Amino acid sequence: MRTPQRVSAATFADGIAEMSEAVGSDWVFTSDPDVDTYRDFYSVLWDEPEERVASAAVAPKTVEEVQAVVRACNQRRIPLYPLSTGRNLGYGGSAPVYSGSVVLDLKRMDRVIEVSEGNASCLVEPGVSYFDMYRHLQESGSKLWIDVPDPGWGSMVGNALDSGGGYTAAPYRGHWEAVCGIEAVLADGEVFRTGMGALPGAETWQQYRMGVGPCLDGLFRQSSLGVVTKMGFWLFPQPEAYLSCSIELPHFEDIEPLVELFNELEYGNIFNGMPSISSPVMTRENPLMFAEIPEPEEMNRLVEETGLAAWRGSMVFYGPEKVIRAQWDYVQERFRAQFDSPVFKENQFVKLPLSPADMATIQKNRFGIPSLEIFAVGSRGFGDFNPSDGHIWFSAIIPRTGKGYVEANRVMRRACAEREIPLFMFSPAVTCWTRSFVLFAAVPVYKDKERNTALRENVLEVIKLCAEHGWGEYRCPPAFQDAVMDAYSFNDNILRRVNERIKDALDPNGILSAGRYGVWPKHLREGRAG
Amino acid sequence: MRTPQRVSAATFADGIAEMSEAVGSDWVFTSDPDVDTYRDFYSVLWDEPEERVASAAVAPKTVEEVQAVVRACNQRRIPLYPLSTGRNLGYGGSAPVYSGSVVLDLKRMDRVIEVSEGNASCLVEPGVSYFDMYRHLQESGSKLWIDVPDPGWGSMVGNALDSGGGYTAAPYRGHWEAVCGIEAVLADGEVFRTGMGALPGAETWQQYRMGVGPCLDGLFRQSSLGVVTKMGFWLFPQPEAYLSCSIELPHFEDIEPLVELFNELEYGNIFNGMPSISSPVMTRENPLMFAEIPEPEEMNRLVEETGLAAWRGSMVFYGPEKVIRAQWDYVQERFRAQFDSPVFKENQFVKLPLSPADMATIQKNRFGIPSLEIFAVGSRGFGDFNPSDGHIWFSAIIPRTGKGYVEANRVMRRACAEREIPLFMFSPAVTCWTRSFVLFAAVPVYKDKERNTALRENVLEVIKLCAEHGWGEYRCPPAFQDAVMDAYSFNDNILRRVNERIKDALDPNGILSAGRYGVWPKHLREGRAG
Repeated sequence: MRTPQRVSAATFADGIAEMSEAVGSDWVFTSDPDVDTYRDFYSVLWDEPEERVASAAVAPKTVEEVQAVVRACNQRRIPLYPLSTGRNLGYGGSAPVYSGSVVLDLKRMDRVIEVSEGNASCLVEPGVSYFDMYRHLQESGSKLWIDVPDPGWGSMVGNALDSGGGYTAAPYRGHWEAVCGIEAVLADGEVFRTGMGALPGAETWQQYRMGVGPCLDGLFRQSSLGVVTKMGFWLFPQPEAYLSCSIELPHFEDIEPLVELFNELEYGNIFNGMPSISSPVMTRENPLMFAEIPEPEEMNRLVEETGLAAWRGSMVFYGPEKVIRAQWDYVQERFRAQFDSPVFKENQFVKLPLSPADMATIQKNRFGIPSLEIFAVGSRGFGDFNPSDGHIWFSAIIPRTGKGYVEANRVMRRACAEREIPLFMFSPAVTCWTRSFVLFAAVPVYKDKERNTALRENVLEVIKLCAEHGWGEYRCPPAFQDAVMDAYSFNDNILRRVNERIKDALDPNGILSAGRYGVWPKHLREGRAG
Repeated sequence: MRTPQRVSAATFADGIAEMSEAVGSDWVFTSDPDVDTYRDFYSVLWDEPEERVASAAVAPKTVEEVQAVVRACNQRRIPLYPLSTGRNLGYGGSAPVYSGSVVLDLKRMDRVIEVSEGNASCLVEPGVSYFDMYRHLQESGSKLWIDVPDPGWGSMVGNALDSGGGYTAAPYRGHWEAVCGIEAVLADGEVFRTGMGALPGAETWQQYRMGVGPCLDGLFRQSSLGVVTKMGFWLFPQPEAYLSCSIELPHFEDIEPLVELFNELEYGNIFNGMPSISSPVMTRENPLMFAEIPEPEEMNRLVEETGLAAWRGSMVFYGPEKVIRAQWDYVQERFRAQFDSPVFKENQFVKLPLSPADMATIQKNRFGIPSLEIFAVGSRGFGDFNPSDGHIWFSAIIPRTGKGYVEANRVMRRACAEREIPLFMFSPAVTCWTRSFVLFAAVPVYKDKERNTALRENVLEVIKLCAEHGWGEYRCPPAFQDAVMDAYSFNDNILRRVNERIKDALDPNGILSAGRYGVWPKHLREGRAG
């Protein structure tokens, strides 16, 4: 049996015995083959001594069992790392941040506690996957949509806690933004509820987030302060129709007004689906791999030479047919008034509910349907016959401006070229959230120590380079969480210092998710640098 | 000179001297007439020994001065109560929750730091009023709207921190929900920034709320954890047109499907302005004073007798003319398909920008224009020739269902009738926030101890009665904050216990806003019951 650092074998055995009593010995895993299933198969530290690995795993079925496990660990200072279903691939998978932690696997807590058609909301346990919820809604004849990430096998709760995003309407596609109401077991085993959940008998837990006094939901995002055992979500009532459109523009100089007009239209509720901006001319060799954006004259020359547009702005409308057609008309009017020869395209119009024939032509994630189709993209690359063993995501928040868009492309392209960092996919900017761009890049990982060593150094350099430009990652694999939190350095890293003061107050023994996103408990803080 | 409890006169004099040095003696107020301007003129404890009054006031101009004041107080354990402009009338005005606190008046910090047209956002100091911001936008030719509460003389920051609401589109009309980025001075004088504000050089502080790790903005809502010195807001791009409409329905039984259809339409983004539901037949004697909703047969009989509708659902559309007309068409279609003889009314259509003639006919708050017009309503009543001296608000979150709407009306009406609580205004449910109803009642307050004693007892009983029904206040005057927080009693009041653990961690001397929303520092916790 493996043993966590700083815990004696006897104490650990005693803790495991108590956990087994609480959840049943079938649901406590200590053998190497069992525990190895919790390795991060995309780890950039694969098979190195520093790889973050679990000492054991325990899978409770109820809140009471979670409380018993947490108490058993708190009493003995056994580090515990909760996860919902462990599908956070590219951002750490199912491995703990602090090596030797016991993984608290919540996949057996898979109850859909409530779906309210009238309020368009649900309350679920952490083991409920997008597939589970989709099936539940289909079987009950619900008219509500979930919003799904790629791929759809993960946990709704886990994805929201990690601030994942999807593809339908705002605010639903920002998964953390659609959360309403959290229950969490704290480090001392007490059950805590946010917002109206703190008021016994309230029917408004999934209606009003804030309750009275400070609004504490945010404490549980990407955090180490509790084990989330229930979470409420707002759901999107199925629209009558779907329309995806795009606008192509011919000049480099169009990027700034294009972004500004998109902003105005989205913030003014003229469209509610996800906007994205790409460049036909800069992706002519590979549709998902942006080349470095050249100087204006050169880009305009390439446009002339190839006949491809400089920019393509895409947007999606969800709603009644007559409304979304009027919205698209208005969008075209505005573009015509402001731009030189915009080219408009209606890419797809679909009436809901979907027919079996529609299923073959749609992008499922735009319709809240989970799948594993997109999974192939990230892990295998396009036309790459030497596939990698996995990938990590590099995900930075960049300004939602034309300038931000162009600069992020250039800086990242050059940085990766200099360092020979290959990228599978590189979209300079998408907008899962309503107000910012996020630059996503999938970086291939191989089960090769030498390549991984170079990759880690390179990624650390790119994190620093981005910080110098004012761009911060909103999410990253465990190996980079300290470096990313370091970059949020205003006033001598007061963000982390405040997080750690709260950590000490709510988890004085420092047992929960030690090190997650750079927040360490007191007794491990010194080791942070390593 | 008054002295705070538990602080010696010498220590206090010393603290005042240090504060005077920091901000200039012109901006430190200790004389009775000066300090009395900070009384809550609507206090339900007026002139009683328990009235919450300040010992002094200090008005810094800069963040550095705030830091110096906070440090001077922290060193000497002088209680400090920050307020932005102190216009929180009906919810406590400019008086502290803990009597004897020094009011930290931030009205001189009145800089509009930034307005971004492209991102439709702003960054402001706490002294910026709605009038200030409106003028700033008008003078700079901006096309952005703010969202204003009634009346508009208060602070944008203060109103958002108190979770105030307004009347334009979602999410802008939920003032806390439109916040993006906070700077606060903590109890030890350190400056803290949330989200992307923690990343030096980031241009995305007003674009992405969450940053990395736990999302800590919520800590500052209705709280005692910091002095907010900067706050970002998302603003609404001026729409092309405005259309307000209503639908009248004839049967008591229509209420449940009416609320459900409104929910579906709003959550599906078919309309974005504020919905409200009233009852022509139950408000026939006074348009803002709902009578108790009777049994179905009686209500249906009254409808027949008076010719007035049972229910009126109102909604507002903001957007391009062709879009909002299509939206309204669709709404009518849906109502026709589902209800027996709905009556549709277009109340007002306005093209933007407003003409001088429009100004005479519009409800200014629907157009983001601050005014003091509505002020008269709350303080003076309708046709009441014995006006009160003020009012308090009673503001409970109730379920957004037909059943919740009817029950809240009946319970509140009976409770107030039994206790002879007069109400100025009583709207059973409006929806400043996107997912819940809030029941608002303005209760008159007189400068009369006997009446106030009875009023306090009655309000405490109504708070308990509401809690028994699962309804919680989201905001209330200081005299009731302990009782309201008491009602959020899940798991032995763990919401308050967690808040107090965080309070102790971030403000160990307990100097900031002691007692706000029932959260007391350690040394004052025992006195809570009183």
